[in-house]
Amino acid sequence: MSHPPPEVYLDNNATTPPLPEVRAAVLNALGAFGNPSSSHTAGERARGQLREARSSLASLLGCDPASIVFTSGATEANNTVLRSFSGPGRRIVSTEVEHSSVLAALERRAGEGTEVVLLPVGRSGLIDPADLRRAIAEAAALVSIQWVNSETGVVQPIQEIGRLCAEAGVPFHTDAAQAVGKLPVSLQDLPVDYASIAGHKFHAPVGVGALYVRAGAVLQGLLDGGDQESGLRAGTENVPGIAGMGCAARLREESLDETITRLGSLRDRLEREILDRCGGVTVNGDTRARVVNTTNLRFDGVDGEALVARLDQRGVRCSQSSACTNQRPEPSHVLRAMGLSEEEAYASVRFSLSVLNDEEEVEAACAAVAEEVHRIRAFSGGKGADRMELSGVAE
Amino acid sequence: MSHPPPEVYLDNNATTPPLPEVRAAVLNALGAFGNPSSSHTAGERARGQLREARSSLASLLGCDPASIVFTSGATEANNTVLRSFSGPGRRIVSTEVEHSSVLAALERRAGEGTEVVLLPVGRSGLIDPADLRRAIAEAAALVSIQWVNSETGVVQPIQEIGRLCAEAGVPFHTDAAQAVGKLPVSLQDLPVDYASIAGHKFHAPVGVGALYVRAGAVLQGLLDGGDQESGLRAGTENVPGIAGMGCAARLREESLDETITRLGSLRDRLEREILDRCGGVTVNGDTRARVVNTTNLRFDGVDGEALVARLDQRGVRCSQSSACTNQRPEPSHVLRAMGLSEEEAYASVRFSLSVLNDEEEVEAACAAVAEEVHRIRAFSGGKGADRMELSGVAE
Repeated sequence: MSHPPPEVYLDNNATTPPLPEVRAAVLNALGAFGNPSSSHTAGERARGQLREARSSLASLLGCDPASIVFTSGATEANNTVLRSFSGPGRRIVSTEVEHSSVLAALERRAGEGTEVVLLPVGRSGLIDPADLRRAIAEAAALVSIQWVNSETGVVQPIQEIGRLCAEAGVPFHTDAAQAVGKLPVSLQDLPVDYASIAGHKFHAPVGVGALYVRAGAVLQGLLDGGDQESGLRAGTENVPGIAGMGCAARLREESLDETITRLGSLRDRLEREILDRCGGVTVNGDTRARVVNTTNLRFDGVDGEALVARLDQRGVRCSQSSACTNQRPEPSHVLRAMGLSEEEAYASVRFSLSVLNDEEEVEAACAAVAEEVHRIRAFSGGKGADRMELSGVAE
Repeated sequence: MSHPPPEVYLDNNATTPPLPEVRAAVLNALGAFGNPSSSHTAGERARGQLREARSSLASLLGCDPASIVFTSGATEANNTVLRSFSGPGRRIVSTEVEHSSVLAALERRAGEGTEVVLLPVGRSGLIDPADLRRAIAEAAALVSIQWVNSETGVVQPIQEIGRLCAEAGVPFHTDAAQAVGKLPVSLQDLPVDYASIAGHKFHAPVGVGALYVRAGAVLQGLLDGGDQESGLRAGTENVPGIAGMGCAARLREESLDETITRLGSLRDRLEREILDRCGGVTVNGDTRARVVNTTNLRFDGVDGEALVARLDQRGVRCSQSSACTNQRPEPSHVLRAMGLSEEEAYASVRFSLSVLNDEEEVEAACAAVAEEVHRIRAFSGGKGADRMELSGVAE
């Protein structure tokens, strides 16, 4: 029996491996169990873990711990804000390149009478702030624009977007799931009212996230019940997951500058080598306004799905679009919105790195990508050539 | 420095300690990470964990694995069903003794135009099926009635309730958070359309639960986004929590009969000894239609809050009402609905056991309860006596 090849995990925008320290924090919380709403010592033990995690996460986000509402993830955080500002006669402005949890929620709310305006993006993946200014010249209940795109890593001009919203008096929500831990974040210094956070994008476990709610910002919770999370999110808190997220936040904050430098260097090497060794490869989206860990590459003459599958067989994990949509047969809605053709979208593959990747893995991945791209192209070319020869014989 | 006394945890209806095997399952899932929506091998690794856990939970619940939607807990499950059946002109029938996640959700929905009918209960804590029959003689969108009450352990006649709903053609949801693992459950053999499950009530971690949705039953999900959970619950699944819940379900299923016998024996001993040793103690609610692990006791002349706090100092954890409401100053809404006076409700304390408790702990708890009850009563009596003496001196 042959052993599977060692795993080179380059799909960190889908999810990241929980760090050893995070696993230890989760395990510790499972041992020091308790319901944070219990009045007794076991409850206080659990409350203490929430306090510590809230403080660590707030420190990474640059905000007051009291502004953090723990949730089951960014999807819940996005749904909470969008539902809170929806209703007949209300208008929400967003973009065509949001994550499915924003677009699907908006589609549902639109079916119930909310007016939804989706701003376009250019080939760069960036919105034009002038489009936003026009869209909010008319009264809007909310602007919801992602900070960083999960597929391309493109960073929207959050400061400017927030300023325009503040000037127009429109609350501003940003899906920050792909931003936190990949660029410096200081929510208290930004004109942002609500921000969605996903722990598992920065090495916390899956199933836990948060919603940042600026002091004084109004919000109707999505889950009613107990008084947890200042009454904004009922339900017994996921203490082990939250403890893991707190630990992951602390580790990331301690190493943010170094992490950004290291991830940028690894990603740039991966990108450069693939471009050099494959030929006919284009980077999708703006390469300057982009987080350091992501590259979305379009391989001329290559079926991206086939490339992802072949690389998987060699132990290299990457993806075609965001995990939350990539079981669907459609091409990436993000790349299509950026003006790529269906064929171009299908020819594109995302590589996203984490602190757990190293130079050796990047080298192995580049070699695998180059070989498989050449094989796919040769096979497509070969098939064409075979067909020509066969037809020659037939003649 | 004095050591804290050993913990005797008798608040298992608030939350249960994750079992060692459950902690190991969580840790394993954290190591074998992956996003279940990823097409590659790491995604498949995570999907495999979901499949295994779904199968184990379905086995404990006596239902098809395809009927299970993983959620962040019972609060989310309850909110999902109640929101799905709400709306102006719609009518939901429930009871006065539901968990706060049902009552608060219904209150919110009532504010938006849903008509809410809450059935009363008797001193037993049980509803009168005749009341339900009358309530659903008029068209209703949903009946939502808990299986087991978290404060008293009282078991509603679910079979009969479901039959009445089926005859009237009204969908039936039950909050089964406190039932699963404490009595035999076979959802496929019951006239139940939706059931809410909380993992942490049977030794899974907090932050994970499920919603049972009978095949063919309609439901609108609460979270929109990715296609997770058959499109009924978007958001990356809490794989480690779910793996832990699957493990806890498997362990409970393997030992259900034995567990029920053992818990019943421990609870009966606890109850009998406290009744014998304290005097002036009454069991709240029906003692026959009751799960095996719970007793809710009313101590004449005792402030329950003081008793809970004194026992906590001695290492014994118990509570006054459900954890999700016990940071509120009001008396238990459950006991008040059962016809207890405010004073009687304040004099009541819940003890809830788990498989991790043993005879020695029960004995220690009984001794502590008896001592503290006598002290509180003596102190109240003493204070009265002191006051009389003082007034005697003043005269």
